[in-house]
Amino acid sequence: MTYSRELSAALKKAKARVGDRVKAAGHEGILMPSPELVKDSTHIVLKLDTGYNLGIKFEPKTQIVKLAGRKDAKPGKKPKLTPQSEGKIALLATGGTIASKVDYSTGGVSAALTSEDLIGIVPELGDIAHIDMKTLGEWMSEDLDHENWITIAKECEKRLKKDDGIVITHGTDTMHYTSAILSFMLHTPGKPVVLTGAQRSTDRGSADSAMNLITSAYTALGDIAEVGICMHAQPDDSYSFFIRGTKVRKMHSTMRNAFRPINDYPLAKVFPDGRIEPISVRPYRERGKTETKIVFDNAVELLKVYPGADPKLLTNAVNSGAKGIVIEGTGMGHVPTKARKPWVPVIKDIVSSGVPVVVETQCLYGPVNPRVYSNLRLLYQDAGAIPAADMLPETTYVKLGWVLAQEKKLPKIRDMMLTNYAGEINDRIEPDMFLY
Amino acid sequence: MTYSRELSAALKKAKARVGDRVKAAGHEGILMPSPELVKDSTHIVLKLDTGYNLGIKFEPKTQIVKLAGRKDAKPGKKPKLTPQSEGKIALLATGGTIASKVDYSTGGVSAALTSEDLIGIVPELGDIAHIDMKTLGEWMSEDLDHENWITIAKECEKRLKKDDGIVITHGTDTMHYTSAILSFMLHTPGKPVVLTGAQRSTDRGSADSAMNLITSAYTALGDIAEVGICMHAQPDDSYSFFIRGTKVRKMHSTMRNAFRPINDYPLAKVFPDGRIEPISVRPYRERGKTETKIVFDNAVELLKVYPGADPKLLTNAVNSGAKGIVIEGTGMGHVPTKARKPWVPVIKDIVSSGVPVVVETQCLYGPVNPRVYSNLRLLYQDAGAIPAADMLPETTYVKLGWVLAQEKKLPKIRDMMLTNYAGEINDRIEPDMFLY
Repeated sequence: MTYSRELSAALKKAKARVGDRVKAAGHEGILMPSPELVKDSTHIVLKLDTGYNLGIKFEPKTQIVKLAGRKDAKPGKKPKLTPQSEGKIALLATGGTIASKVDYSTGGVSAALTSEDLIGIVPELGDIAHIDMKTLGEWMSEDLDHENWITIAKECEKRLKKDDGIVITHGTDTMHYTSAILSFMLHTPGKPVVLTGAQRSTDRGSADSAMNLITSAYTALGDIAEVGICMHAQPDDSYSFFIRGTKVRKMHSTMRNAFRPINDYPLAKVFPDGRIEPISVRPYRERGKTETKIVFDNAVELLKVYPGADPKLLTNAVNSGAKGIVIEGTGMGHVPTKARKPWVPVIKDIVSSGVPVVVETQCLYGPVNPRVYSNLRLLYQDAGAIPAADMLPETTYVKLGWVLAQEKKLPKIRDMMLTNYAGEINDRIEPDMFLY
Repeated sequence: MTYSRELSAALKKAKARVGDRVKAAGHEGILMPSPELVKDSTHIVLKLDTGYNLGIKFEPKTQIVKLAGRKDAKPGKKPKLTPQSEGKIALLATGGTIASKVDYSTGGVSAALTSEDLIGIVPELGDIAHIDMKTLGEWMSEDLDHENWITIAKECEKRLKKDDGIVITHGTDTMHYTSAILSFMLHTPGKPVVLTGAQRSTDRGSADSAMNLITSAYTALGDIAEVGICMHAQPDDSYSFFIRGTKVRKMHSTMRNAFRPINDYPLAKVFPDGRIEPISVRPYRERGKTETKIVFDNAVELLKVYPGADPKLLTNAVNSGAKGIVIEGTGMGHVPTKARKPWVPVIKDIVSSGVPVVVETQCLYGPVNPRVYSNLRLLYQDAGAIPAADMLPETTYVKLGWVLAQEKKLPKIRDMMLTNYAGEINDRIEPDMFLY
């Protein structure tokens, strides 16, 4: 039993066992097995008569009453994990730690598991939905580029026509770059496209892959029709966040809850028992609504500015063939302006030659503002840089590559960079989004 | 009264009033007025016999006993704001928003106030200590470089010999680069060196400069002999954090509590009434203990890696004269390894030619680990890159410039990069440091 002591005692007192019909906190339903992944769970799960699973947090005042024994409850009917359990999920494996094994000769870890191996390790997936697996690659995510993104996007485009949702297993290092570009390439997916992975290799004790896969499968069967990342929200196994693909970032190199929303709330909490608790309202699943644009021009460079940085970084980029430049500016989107090595005149020349220069903030949280300071006015009004609102550096970079593959003219590129295609721009940044 | 209900009840029960001599949680002292800026405070403040104010958190088990009435306690002595209020602070103004005015003709903001103007705006500073002001510059911080850092450090070196502590007002955009390099240049300050600034200009209603200056002045008179940043810890005016100069980063472009500790706890909470509540143990003020090393070689480049990034970024850097390169790697410190455009062979060549390549993580939180993955082994064991432990990108960049000014040989440079000079490396990263 994995319930907390208080909850175990309350269930014992009520003589309620799994399969019994019970009433708890005003809800009636069949008591479901406690999720095995959660130790000392303080929740019970009821299958309501509507077929939905409801998680109820047990508190000292929560009353649990047994209404009928398991025989009388719903004789002959085997409880299903979710109402959608006849759904079909495409599981696309691309490599990464979630598909990796420890090589005990070197102690190193490398991508080795196929999607079939994954199902073998997490057999619960088969209970959630029909899983149609395909291995697209065995890549560590630091080695990916736009060609891999296009491979993944094209497979998604196919699967969105026939399956109920998509789960993509992926290395975590650049997962948020991939989630951002897929958000643009599959900009109206109509169904959930869920990226997930693992911070610990699957054959280690502290593995996070099982819960990440299970919550991702439930998300893929759910109603939030977005491209996003579904990974641990907490250091423990209590629940995952599903976070919009353009507003998510790997913020910790080792912790299981490394992926955080930036300038946004998560779309939802997803619990290992299948409950999906929406946090922000988003487009819902809709038939025949898929629209895609799978293109990318990789002649884009991403540069970070820092004190003393030489503006020849910019001219080197253009001389090397860059057709677009993204700068991680400081604060509200500054670059050296009245410095000994000023960037603004060089940017002005580059923009005049037809190459877009987009500036976002290396703070990560908060927006760029092209007006507050006189130095900002020189950069945006005078030199013609494009302020990237509150977009993440990674999102700005992939968006510029996606835009450049569609438009060559500066005014149109500017318009597209400032258009909100996939929730990448948030006009309502709330204080509690900071360090969420 | 602004105490919490429980604390008020406990004080009433003990018949303890402000000015009485009390014993609480093992400490004896005079009960000080509750801080007016804090609502529902769960702390009491005792003035100890040493003259220091001590904040004590009230918990259900905390015993408060009245030892003597206020008349018997220390008759005739008016409590001072701090015991050091005859102290002398050097206030060095360098520009930034804290010293800026709105230009109502353009709506823009630019650096304009001198240190004298600052005192005029925040006259409370004069009550805290004798303030010896000097204006070093009227710079916006995006325009600073290592020459400004050396100017500031040399003035600090002088002032550490005669004043009790230093407050430096500074633009916020690159304040954490400056706090990091000052931490190395003044690596054993012996006294507090406190950087502060403002996220809102001083003539606006939501200005944060007054509380930042006041808490910084108290910190400069306090006992934590570190270079650090003292700014709002919360969106409201409840208290500031004093954060170690090498472990702090501007994480939000607009919010007042933008500066956060990364892979570290703050050194202390500093309240506007002068209380300093230590969070982590640090070196204390010590006479004659100042050691400095004010040097910098600016032939360092900071590059961020991203999917599809071309390793010619590295060769361009070396061809432009870089004598050291810092890379913001992904996850545990990866660069493209088995990618279409691999970075590892190029790094191997560069390191072989005697140019150090140091890699840290663009996650910001968490350490680099040179061993876990086979790709990491190729980069660190085989190609000879230097893993930057849990250092911030900004700290790694300024540290490499500081090290290169002292050493030319690779093995010694590696040793110095991995030596902990100013708390920049933390071997004990705790889970709750994430998003602190």
